[in-house]
Amino acid sequence: MERHFEASLRDLKNQLVLMAGHVERAIGNAIEGLKKKDFTLISSVYAIEDTINQESMTLDETCVKLLALHQPLAADLRLLIAIIKMNTDLERMGDLAVNIAHDSEDYLQGTPLKQLVNLPIMCAEVQGMVRESINSFVSKNEKLADEVLQRDDLVDNLKSKIKNDVAEVLKTRPHDVNQGLHLILIARHLERIGDHATNIAEDVIYVISGKDIRHGHVARTK
Amino acid sequence: MERHFEASLRDLKNQLVLMAGHVERAIGNAIEGLKKKDFTLISSVYAIEDTINQESMTLDETCVKLLALHQPLAADLRLLIAIIKMNTDLERMGDLAVNIAHDSEDYLQGTPLKQLVNLPIMCAEVQGMVRESINSFVSKNEKLADEVLQRDDLVDNLKSKIKNDVAEVLKTRPHDVNQGLHLILIARHLERIGDHATNIAEDVIYVISGKDIRHGHVARTK
Repeated sequence: MERHFEASLRDLKNQLVLMAGHVERAIGNAIEGLKKKDFTLISSVYAIEDTINQESMTLDETCVKLLALHQPLAADLRLLIAIIKMNTDLERMGDLAVNIAHDSEDYLQGTPLKQLVNLPIMCAEVQGMVRESINSFVSKNEKLADEVLQRDDLVDNLKSKIKNDVAEVLKTRPHDVNQGLHLILIARHLERIGDHATNIAEDVIYVISGKDIRHGHVARTK
Repeated sequence: MERHFEASLRDLKNQLVLMAGHVERAIGNAIEGLKKKDFTLISSVYAIEDTINQESMTLDETCVKLLALHQPLAADLRLLIAIIKMNTDLERMGDLAVNIAHDSEDYLQGTPLKQLVNLPIMCAEVQGMVRESINSFVSKNEKLADEVLQRDDLVDNLKSKIKNDVAEVLKTRPHDVNQGLHLILIARHLERIGDHATNIAEDVIYVISGKDIRHGHVARTK
């Protein structure tokens, strides 16, 4: 029975890694498609998100069954609840990748506003956060989870930079406001994916150390 | 033991209602403060969000303890997991209310761009969604949960309308791009709060009927 539970946990972790890989690919394809004006690449995001949704529902069901079947206590219970939460975060990241794809398609149908320099950089950074957040969970590496939290500042700065650049261009091209909004929104979607990776990293730190750092202060659990 | 569990569940539900009330007040104060140019009212949002965060952490801990202590099965187990998820949604709504407060403060420091007509309407609508989503859970009312899902379309339309209005104004006032962005972002924060209410309504339908409608198709659970 216990061995079965351990094996199930291992499966769940593998599933999370797989989902995170799909999220990475979804946002990568959206941003690369935007840069290369490749609509086919962008639309691949919709199929990937569909896969993520299926994986998410399966994972959720598996967690509920494991809770019911094994009624785990203490550490294992927290672990399963953390997995349920991480699953939700990954699923929402998939939604955001779809948002990026929509805004990219809309943007490409209008006049290009500017060179896209910072969006690909921001995308790579966010992909790294997604990957490392799940890796920190699988490898129980609190330091790695902490690094994800640090990287979030860089992503926030990139988003502000993109917003300011666009606002500057729009002052001389007011009729391209909608184009500018698409770029700013894409940056915000990426930022929010980074926020979800941050949520995961915080859950990891909670699972490993029992420290609840979600609201900027450390509340040790009883 | 069972009676204790039932009482605990009732407490949890009351706590969710309380949190939802705080979320409603937070977004209401932010938007009313924006309309009345009242910085004190806007800054009240920060204290309310702090309360929501505390409530969220307490609720989370209580759920974990209940799971460990009572090891509930089937329906009760799903109920507790749903509460954990709803709690996360309410907590994120609090974050979004803070985003609205920040954007409102920034907006009020610049030149007013236009009359704020649709934002208060959108706010009232979203407040209703938050309230009804939790009410549908407490009263196990699937029809009410379904109504929340329907209302989401209205909120999405209001957001699009606000975005288009702002884009139109900006064409003649390009130097006010940042002001326009604040209004559009406030509308988006409200829309996302509506999305979280939708998540809750979907969880309610899942708990009541076992139907998983999260990804646009009904997958009945085994």
